[in-house]
Amino acid sequence: MTTTHEPLKIALLGAGNVGSQVARILTEDAEMLQARVGARLELVGVFVRRTDAEREYQLPGELYTTDAEALVDQADIVIELLGGIEPAKSLIQRAISRGAAVVTGNKALLAQHGSELYRAAAEAGTQLSFEASVAGAIPILRPLRDSLSGDRVTRIMGIANGTTNYILDQMDTTGATFDDALAEAQRLGYAEADPTADVEGHDAAAKAAILANLAFHAPFTLDQVHCEGITAITAADNEAAAEAGYVIKLLAIAERITTPGGDGADSTEGAVLRVHPTLLPRQHPLAAVHGAFNAVFVEAENAGELMFYGPGAGGAPTASAVMGDTVSIARRLVRGGPGRTHTPQATLPALPVGDATTSYLVVLEVKDQAGVLAQTAGVFAQHGVSIEAMRQVPLPEGHSGHAEAESSLRFITHRALERDLEQTVAELTALDVVTDVISVLRVEGN
Amino acid sequence: MTTTHEPLKIALLGAGNVGSQVARILTEDAEMLQARVGARLELVGVFVRRTDAEREYQLPGELYTTDAEALVDQADIVIELLGGIEPAKSLIQRAISRGAAVVTGNKALLAQHGSELYRAAAEAGTQLSFEASVAGAIPILRPLRDSLSGDRVTRIMGIANGTTNYILDQMDTTGATFDDALAEAQRLGYAEADPTADVEGHDAAAKAAILANLAFHAPFTLDQVHCEGITAITAADNEAAAEAGYVIKLLAIAERITTPGGDGADSTEGAVLRVHPTLLPRQHPLAAVHGAFNAVFVEAENAGELMFYGPGAGGAPTASAVMGDTVSIARRLVRGGPGRTHTPQATLPALPVGDATTSYLVVLEVKDQAGVLAQTAGVFAQHGVSIEAMRQVPLPEGHSGHAEAESSLRFITHRALERDLEQTVAELTALDVVTDVISVLRVEGN
Repeated sequence: MTTTHEPLKIALLGAGNVGSQVARILTEDAEMLQARVGARLELVGVFVRRTDAEREYQLPGELYTTDAEALVDQADIVIELLGGIEPAKSLIQRAISRGAAVVTGNKALLAQHGSELYRAAAEAGTQLSFEASVAGAIPILRPLRDSLSGDRVTRIMGIANGTTNYILDQMDTTGATFDDALAEAQRLGYAEADPTADVEGHDAAAKAAILANLAFHAPFTLDQVHCEGITAITAADNEAAAEAGYVIKLLAIAERITTPGGDGADSTEGAVLRVHPTLLPRQHPLAAVHGAFNAVFVEAENAGELMFYGPGAGGAPTASAVMGDTVSIARRLVRGGPGRTHTPQATLPALPVGDATTSYLVVLEVKDQAGVLAQTAGVFAQHGVSIEAMRQVPLPEGHSGHAEAESSLRFITHRALERDLEQTVAELTALDVVTDVISVLRVEGN
Repeated sequence: MTTTHEPLKIALLGAGNVGSQVARILTEDAEMLQARVGARLELVGVFVRRTDAEREYQLPGELYTTDAEALVDQADIVIELLGGIEPAKSLIQRAISRGAAVVTGNKALLAQHGSELYRAAAEAGTQLSFEASVAGAIPILRPLRDSLSGDRVTRIMGIANGTTNYILDQMDTTGATFDDALAEAQRLGYAEADPTADVEGHDAAAKAAILANLAFHAPFTLDQVHCEGITAITAADNEAAAEAGYVIKLLAIAERITTPGGDGADSTEGAVLRVHPTLLPRQHPLAAVHGAFNAVFVEAENAGELMFYGPGAGGAPTASAVMGDTVSIARRLVRGGPGRTHTPQATLPALPVGDATTSYLVVLEVKDQAGVLAQTAGVFAQHGVSIEAMRQVPLPEGHSGHAEAESSLRFITHRALERDLEQTVAELTALDVVTDVISVLRVEGN
């Protein structure tokens, strides 16, 4: 394809794992990219902290610079892969204010300051794309923003963190403990030396905020996400899950709900954002997502149930997402026409997790005496939580058991208000006949 | 949201299953759509054959018209849901020539005349969107066209026909025969009274052409798709598949290949498009796609393996895809800027299926005499087909068996050229020691 459009100048901020792969694709696939865009994509420089460091993909030395601002100022498209809040935020703002388009994979930045940046881009008539910030290579930005734009998304459940999915998958399939599975993940490079952001759910929480933003066309931030990690998952939890036909996944859930109202209170429409270990039936599509893969399960009023599956991280896959954004923007610059950014037009309040409805699996160690079942079942009833299934199960292996305890009870509830479930468990714990609470896990996808 | 843009006029061609749902969404969700677009979407009329027929969703009577041309001539966006070639093609061309944008779910039309229509839309500076033509509600158009635009798709494998997936799933899970599973699918409304287009693979073949078009940025048509249906699948096939750890799916496959060349011939880059029953390992993501669901599995150089999953048909899901296209186009009309259609810029020749590489599962009924294995294995070797696994297996249940036959041999080959595999099987069939060829099935995803 011959092209008459002048080259588009690309500035790359960061030359780490993903940045190196972006540099490689821009170099090695230059001809293909030019054919698809109708103009050459010219990498004008790469902002790095040290110009003489060794890189996974080595560009000519003169392309590396430590002067980010001068680099940003000459670009048509700025690709930000620095991570963290600063200097990423200031550099993106600088690019936008100059009318340059921005591609970013910075989930932390978007989860905290996304709305501000989307608005700035829209006001400047330019474009901010961020496919790489959620679920690595999995196309989710355009499906949610465009493909489902005529539908109403009611719920998103994502396996949005590959590290924790790897760990939980190992625990499930090999019976490994959390510590052993984490060590294995670290050995394979799936988990960092300090795994806090992954195993405590913070990474998934940032993605929940971004997904909710896209799904509900309304702004949400990280601090609105209820977040529980996977560090407390025990072998007993896994055993209880497996016995009941479930698998444990760390899910990032964003759902549109209407509070029940009543008692003088109006019902409110809003969204609950939550990240926590979740039981899924074995036959649920998300249950088949193994290892470090990610997947986003979407429920929409008309479309029904959709799932998007793929590698959630890694240099080349994430670079593919970055390049998809870059080519899409470049095509628009060649064609002409105003830039477009996802700017949430709706407002939807974030509601506390207590307003969500879910169901619980509860395993109690109980004293072997008459009336235990009636007493425990009574606590559920008292809080309006109905029981779907109850089963007396053997005490989990390795569970020491208290002197008087000879059995355990497993309850699976129907869907109920989270706050009622929480109170139910608190009250069960206080019962004299209950010697231990072995597992309390939320169940979805039933 | 207050809006100053004048309403956009929508013409709907067809009021069947999908058309009725589109009419419902345009009516019931008018407020949401207006907020997302920034202009009202005004349904100005519905072209139907009979204005007095009963509809799933009844609009005011005056909206129905039998004058399609007059309707098209007053629209900003034409939604074509008539199916078939004519009058759909002429009406789309009429709309395009007037500069109206078009949304269609017409796979037959696009698989045969897509390139011509895409080009016409591009030349007229308008837009032709067709998300609903492949895999119902599953967003696949934008992921392939935009999200993966900086990557190189090497292969697509789709479960693109819900009817056949339902039938094969029933045969696999309940042991039903093809005829029984088809009857059940018809009873449930998953299969039509005349199921030919589904069970012979024609529907999937049309989708393969459209998917290849999107994936490889090059034009392909239905007549370039090698097509085999599922009517010949026997209980013995299912048994052989299950025993070897596979499941049978009807896949639409489009793959980029380079022919080996040699013998004076140059190697050629091209694409092979094929639809046939395929064995997949049980742990493959596509193997978990049950019932009438669809899924598209994409392999790309940088992104790796992606999968898109969802309902492949049905009024409301398909209408969701139509509305996604409609809102995306409407947003562009409000924002301004040129229309965009997927116009293949590359050329990639369609190569014959013989050039593809795949592997085969072959089950032979053989005479119980010395040297049978050496003789059969020799035929594979002679054609350069290497054997991954061989196993002597019992004759399938219900298989009558010939007088001298007492056993059967199951071979699974390594990947080899399709034409070599085909010749191998032809020669095996002719061997005196081979009394019957029980199963020959292609294997993918190993």
